[in-house]
Amino acid sequence: MARAVLALLWLRWALSCAAPPNVVLLLMDDMGWGDLGAFGEPSKETPNLDQMASEGMLFLDFYTASPLCSPSYTPQDIVGGIQDSEILLPELLKKAGYTNKIIGKWHLGHRPQFHPLKHGFDEWFGSPNCHFGPYDNRAHPNIPVYRDWEMIGRYYEDFKIDLKTGEANLTQIYLQEALDFISKQQASQQPFFLYWAIDATHAPVYASKHFLGTSQRGLYGDAVREIDDSIGKILKHLQKLGISENTFVFFTSDNGAALISAPKQGGSNGRFLCGKQTTFEGGMREPAIAWWPGHIPAGGSLRAKYNSLGQAEENMRPKPTVLFSVSKLNNVLKVSRQLGSVMDLFTTSLSLVGLQPPSDRQIDGIDLLPAILQGKLIDRPIFYYRGNEMMAVRVGLYKAHYWTWSNSWEEYSKGIDFCPGQNVSGVTTHSQEEHSTLPLLFHLGRDPGEKYPLSFASDEYQGVMRRISVVVQQHKDTMVPGVPQLNVCDKAVMVSC
Amino acid sequence: MARAVLALLWLRWALSCAAPPNVVLLLMDDMGWGDLGAFGEPSKETPNLDQMASEGMLFLDFYTASPLCSPSYTPQDIVGGIQDSEILLPELLKKAGYTNKIIGKWHLGHRPQFHPLKHGFDEWFGSPNCHFGPYDNRAHPNIPVYRDWEMIGRYYEDFKIDLKTGEANLTQIYLQEALDFISKQQASQQPFFLYWAIDATHAPVYASKHFLGTSQRGLYGDAVREIDDSIGKILKHLQKLGISENTFVFFTSDNGAALISAPKQGGSNGRFLCGKQTTFEGGMREPAIAWWPGHIPAGGSLRAKYNSLGQAEENMRPKPTVLFSVSKLNNVLKVSRQLGSVMDLFTTSLSLVGLQPPSDRQIDGIDLLPAILQGKLIDRPIFYYRGNEMMAVRVGLYKAHYWTWSNSWEEYSKGIDFCPGQNVSGVTTHSQEEHSTLPLLFHLGRDPGEKYPLSFASDEYQGVMRRISVVVQQHKDTMVPGVPQLNVCDKAVMVSC
Ligand SMILES: [Ca+2]
Ligand SMILES: [Ca+2]
Repeated sequence: MARAVLALLWLRWALSCAAPPNVVLLLMDDMGWGDLGAFGEPSKETPNLDQMASEGMLFLDFYTASPLCSPSYTPQDIVGGIQDSEILLPELLKKAGYTNKIIGKWHLGHRPQFHPLKHGFDEWFGSPNCHFGPYDNRAHPNIPVYRDWEMIGRYYEDFKIDLKTGEANLTQIYLQEALDFISKQQASQQPFFLYWAIDATHAPVYASKHFLGTSQRGLYGDAVREIDDSIGKILKHLQKLGISENTFVFFTSDNGAALISAPKQGGSNGRFLCGKQTTFEGGMREPAIAWWPGHIPAGGSLRAKYNSLGQAEENMRPKPTVLFSVSKLNNVLKVSRQLGSVMDLFTTSLSLVGLQPPSDRQIDGIDLLPAILQGKLIDRPIFYYRGNEMMAVRVGLYKAHYWTWSNSWEEYSKGIDFCPGQNVSGVTTHSQEEHSTLPLLFHLGRDPGEKYPLSFASDEYQGVMRRISVVVQQHKDTMVPGVPQLNVCDKAVMVSC
Repeated sequence: MARAVLALLWLRWALSCAAPPNVVLLLMDDMGWGDLGAFGEPSKETPNLDQMASEGMLFLDFYTASPLCSPSYTPQDIVGGIQDSEILLPELLKKAGYTNKIIGKWHLGHRPQFHPLKHGFDEWFGSPNCHFGPYDNRAHPNIPVYRDWEMIGRYYEDFKIDLKTGEANLTQIYLQEALDFISKQQASQQPFFLYWAIDATHAPVYASKHFLGTSQRGLYGDAVREIDDSIGKILKHLQKLGISENTFVFFTSDNGAALISAPKQGGSNGRFLCGKQTTFEGGMREPAIAWWPGHIPAGGSLRAKYNSLGQAEENMRPKPTVLFSVSKLNNVLKVSRQLGSVMDLFTTSLSLVGLQPPSDRQIDGIDLLPAILQGKLIDRPIFYYRGNEMMAVRVGLYKAHYWTWSNSWEEYSKGIDFCPGQNVSGVTTHSQEEHSTLPLLFHLGRDPGEKYPLSFASDEYQGVMRRISVVVQQHKDTMVPGVPQLNVCDKAVMVSC
């Protein structure tokens, strides 16, 4: 079977006169939609990511599968799943001849059977968990750091994080690991998958000395600037080695900014409502950039008419607009309005390599390549889950809330606020409010901040909800619940491990 | 005197082998900081303005002089002042040989003595007031539209605005006026000043048929898209005529988005607090772009260290960062952190032409050319006025509120809300709260949304407020109050005219 897949792949790439593309996934931790200049951060301190966007494609409507670090993993998650029965992307890529490396945080437990090298990865530098702590006694030891099978130290002991100054050298170490791995793979002419899951923007945030105090945004901004600088160096390295046109790079984050830690230890979700842990846009809409020089076409802008669901009409798809002159076209950001999900990266990566997704299970992710390479828009809903509850659904530009909840009155009364400074009456509720019979409906184009629910009596509400109800019913009829896993970013769980 | 000025100008331009640059000021009405893609609007529907930014320079910290349409005009206002004693920019430019045209809204009254052609303009197409209405009887007639001295019709009668569909052809008319004027001036080789003050984004918002339904953002977005398209055509026209390198273009807005009209008739202030009529960032921070091909240097990014006031250190000014390769540098947005004000456009325009500001009066505006051409940062405070009350002051990255007020309880209880969905305890107050003895202090870098006041007891608060107090005292000691004028965008005033 593996031989047959390999043979097919060779055939495909031989015919196309190109090597299979490398895949680099840059996954941020708790970075928000509003933390990048290209997404409107008012200090504009991410020139490298903005440059990446201007050379690639910006996804404006890209979602995480869960507003927390480690959701109830389902098979299609990019590196999710610790059950042996689940198939991870690196396992499939390995069969296709790829060398796979994970740098940074492995969300899926630290017992031997959960080790990433048992799940398709060939190399690992990083830790099985979040870096917060420190835990300095034997009952609650500090988080270990691994190189492949070997534990090489612990955070706060061998890998310093100064909680007072915020100084830590970790992002530089992760950067060097990435550059070295890319160099090694290029030298050996072997295709690779690099999963760079770094955590400098997860509280307690950190940056190395060179970046401390360089951001207008304080320590959190320093961490973002160091990440921005590092990603610039990774892309430049790919270009210098001459493999940028054969390397597909995707940047995104695992959930919205943690507003409970803002402003000094948390990021920004821009104008979106609330943050991490909620199913409002601030909790689940992520910055996302695809980069693949020579493959993503010249910039285009919207020339669409919208139908009653706020979807661009089929025959009026975004077409390139010629501005000034062709030579200047590349100054215009290429943006995609495709509704995307982190789950799509599994299917998209397989598609890049020429592999089919496993046929023995349901795969929720879609292949984003038509959106990236041809500017197509694929009609698909987005479901917003909190735990196992479907809280909301997005269809076209409309989002219907079946449940609303920010956080509990008990937490709120202690000063914990998932929506600081924001208060939308009947929406940012502190009790779990069910709206299943009469969902709250928002138009995210006119109202990205989810501030103005549509009137229940309006024709717009009635017409849109009729169509959304069908989508939700179909979803509930066909859904296969995943096996919930521990949320290993939860302090209580970590301490109990 | 005029002859001497002219002679000096000729000398200056003869020596520099260049004609004096044309000046184009594009002033939007009620457009918010968050309405442009380059400033983070989530639908990214302004490719022309984003292109303008990528070819020019983006000002991230640019302020209006008042959160309302027509403030208490002081002499330095760009086109403000209806007192004959006040000197307007076009009067000075006219003496330097410029032809001056105003297209759109003239804020300063419609009686003959207030006519723009009595205040330095050579041509006018537009109206003396806002377009709202209609007023269909003799007691409250519709707003007239003028061509130069002649009234050529009235809104809603001769210049249609369909309040049901939002269709109106006005932006297309204003665009054609601008293109024709530019062509005429280019043909006659005469320098020009064009003041393009259009109002499609002021409620009731409108767009022409071609743009209706093309925005994800509804009618307001349609208006923005038509303006974006028009500005693209103006810039392209300058390029086609070969005069773009000799034309300085500046884009900004007169106040923040009117959130009371949002989401269908009002724009967005992004992540900033509240909107028009308030002195929070949402009321007064404006989108701003300078464009002058061939004069604004290649993109740079911040490499600064910040002092205790959050000002970039003199010896650590922003320096260009080389990304990838020199040929790709122009993909990086050039941004300026210079604190700017619409009042600076008076001084800056004079500086462009080589004129000195009048010496017989106090000029608050500064010359922005060093910021635009050399990337310099000039230390200066920003004062936030509401009427004649100094509500707040910004020094470096810090903003101190001496008074807080959103709107009155009486208005609020009727559903009028200047801060919809936002509620920052003790900040967005519905009574006028004085904090002069202990101002509320925010760090706008870490907290652009003014959500987290600094602790009064902190060293940071104490140190910063000591320095801000000195700035405020100096301001109060030297301020010359302007003569308050009518706010002609106020319905009550208009109706009473
Ligand atoms: Ca996370
Ligand atoms: Ca206005």
